Amino acid sequence: MNIKITGSGSYIPSLKVTNEDFINHSFLNEDGTVFNYTNDVIAQKFTDITGIIERRYAQDNQTASDMATIAAQKAIEDAKIDPETLDYIIFAHNFGDVKKGAIQSDMMPSLASKVKFNLRIKNPKCIAYDMLFGCPGWVESVIQGQAFIKAGMAKKCMIIGAETLSRVVDAHDRDSMIYSDGAGVTIIESTENDGGILSHASASFTYDEINYLYFGKSYNQNLDPDTRYIKMFGRKIYEFALSNVPLAMKECLEKANIEIGQVKKILIHQANEKMDEAIVNRFYKLFKTVTPEGIMPMSIHKLGNSSVATIPTLYDLIMKGELENHSLNKGDIVLFASVGAGMNINAIAYKM
Amino acid sequence: MNIKITGSGSYIPSLKVTNEDFINHSFLNEDGTVFNYTNDVIAQKFTDITGIIERRYAQDNQTASDMATIAAQKAIEDAKIDPETLDYIIFAHNFGDVKKGAIQSDMMPSLASKVKFNLRIKNPKCIAYDMLFGCPGWVESVIQGQAFIKAGMAKKCMIIGAETLSRVVDAHDRDSMIYSDGAGVTIIESTENDGGILSHASASFTYDEINYLYFGKSYNQNLDPDTRYIKMFGRKIYEFALSNVPLAMKECLEKANIEIGQVKKILIHQANEKMDEAIVNRFYKLFKTVTPEGIMPMSIHKLGNSSVATIPTLYDLIMKGELENHSLNKGDIVLFASVGAGMNINAIAYKM
Repeated sequence: MNIKITGSGSYIPSLKVTNEDFINHSFLNEDGTVFNYTNDVIAQKFTDITGIIERRYAQDNQTASDMATIAAQKAIEDAKIDPETLDYIIFAHNFGDVKKGAIQSDMMPSLASKVKFNLRIKNPKCIAYDMLFGCPGWVESVIQGQAFIKAGMAKKCMIIGAETLSRVVDAHDRDSMIYSDGAGVTIIESTENDGGILSHASASFTYDEINYLYFGKSYNQNLDPDTRYIKMFGRKIYEFALSNVPLAMKECLEKANIEIGQVKKILIHQANEKMDEAIVNRFYKLFKTVTPEGIMPMSIHKLGNSSVATIPTLYDLIMKGELENHSLNKGDIVLFASVGAGMNINAIAYKM
Repeated sequence: MNIKITGSGSYIPSLKVTNEDFINHSFLNEDGTVFNYTNDVIAQKFTDITGIIERRYAQDNQTASDMATIAAQKAIEDAKIDPETLDYIIFAHNFGDVKKGAIQSDMMPSLASKVKFNLRIKNPKCIAYDMLFGCPGWVESVIQGQAFIKAGMAKKCMIIGAETLSRVVDAHDRDSMIYSDGAGVTIIESTENDGGILSHASASFTYDEINYLYFGKSYNQNLDPDTRYIKMFGRKIYEFALSNVPLAMKECLEKANIEIGQVKKILIHQANEKMDEAIVNRFYKLFKTVTPEGIMPMSIHKLGNSSVATIPTLYDLIMKGELENHSLNKGDIVLFASVGAGMNINAIAYKM
């Protein structure tokens, strides 16, 4: 028995927000002081490091579960399955449904329940739950779906990653320019076909790393300190990711007995282009080889970091032929890898 | 290989809140109108139905993950394990950490990460994640831990249920008297010993039922409609639970090939004493037999409904000999059963 992705769908919100749209933001240092340079200099530095030129935001009346529903419909169509045959709907997110203008997370009922409701699935044996694992939540949910299939508890699972990070950003924090909204969904199934998930690696680093990403107050000290936003220590994350993500990817290859030269694509979480390049270079260095041209498809320039939605959206774009110069074909080896709040890291070696 | 609970711990907050403590609340109907009877009449009716006389609230400076940490330490001690050998920390909740006086859910990093940090566990291979499944979240997390063990991905899992419902109640809603705070933790392990998890049943009912429990605005129409609280349609939940929970319990027994007469105790989620009695009576009626005396240990009178914390706390109280006239001994058959937001239902048949 193998476990394969049999369909995918994504929802990329239509609202484009460019770096220029931040030009009138009052960006502050952590201590509330004003920067010594102008916003266009900030934006240029930002783009040089992260690669982000624009990002997408959900429409005002949309929530994470609304976007997920659209992506889910596409994935069901793509996989050509009867949604009533789904055994699990696993929804990875970190902030629930956050209404535009509100600050609360709405997760009751769970977002997975809402998607199941929206899809009009009747079968009560289709178990719908949410899971929180930082940005690596979608990859980890695939690993959980795999566990249910291996344990004989499921044959078909819908794996959702959707988030509206635009609703939890501090407008006074330059890092707010990183985050975006989106939804990506895949269907995984047990199959007798060749390929599928070959191996995985997961890790939770909390001892020293727990607060590298956290929910903290605005840099604007006049705002309510009890209103929290997504916050990060970028430099620490960079160093942490560089040390640990390549090792998780290597662990996957070794478990799956795959040679480095067989890897066709690396689908890595998109939070920072320079960081992703450094991770992949370090990964190849572990095998004393150089990074092949075109190994790492990037969506960050136009989509920013949509958290759990990033990797399934990237996968879907490639599968639908919508990412220039990148394709995946039967037999190709793909590595999925992500890093994020927790701090969590994971990777999957996958054969198309 | 069997999967057994090898240790448990719970944290019951010290702050007692009696029904009399609600005497000055201004309870309203859903449409904002005032009740025609006084609060002492309301409280009496409330106790007659739910059985709740008092409940516990977390201290002002405590969050769900703080309470969970204390319960986790007790469970580790009880199971006599080295916490570094845990493969998973699964934390079931529905609202994250909510600070007293604040309305936001803090779930970044995840509550499981916070507990792992508090326990000073270093091993990065101990995977920490949160899951949302309504009040049945703890039972479902045991089922997930079981899946990881069966799939060969884990040998030892910590299963946490902790919640501070007191932080998300609408003070103008009589139902606010139901909810309480608490934390319950168990360790499950793969073992060659006899017994353990015999079978399970899970279901997610969303088609008609999705909003029986939801996050809604206050009954006080002068309050901000964007501030949400836990809300329920009690009558609908009652009827739904009465129809479906007995069936899930029956499914478990049948899968495990257990005779009804072998069941020693039923540990059912405590949300309403009359409802629980009706569920268990209906369950026995399905087997054309009468409910045995003392089959259903109750904690609701003094602890209220602490959501995901209720069942593991009840289990822990029995195991520690702190629930009068109830005990569990080697070889005894126990049924765990819960129902809650989603709407989700689940059950586990377990041999001590």
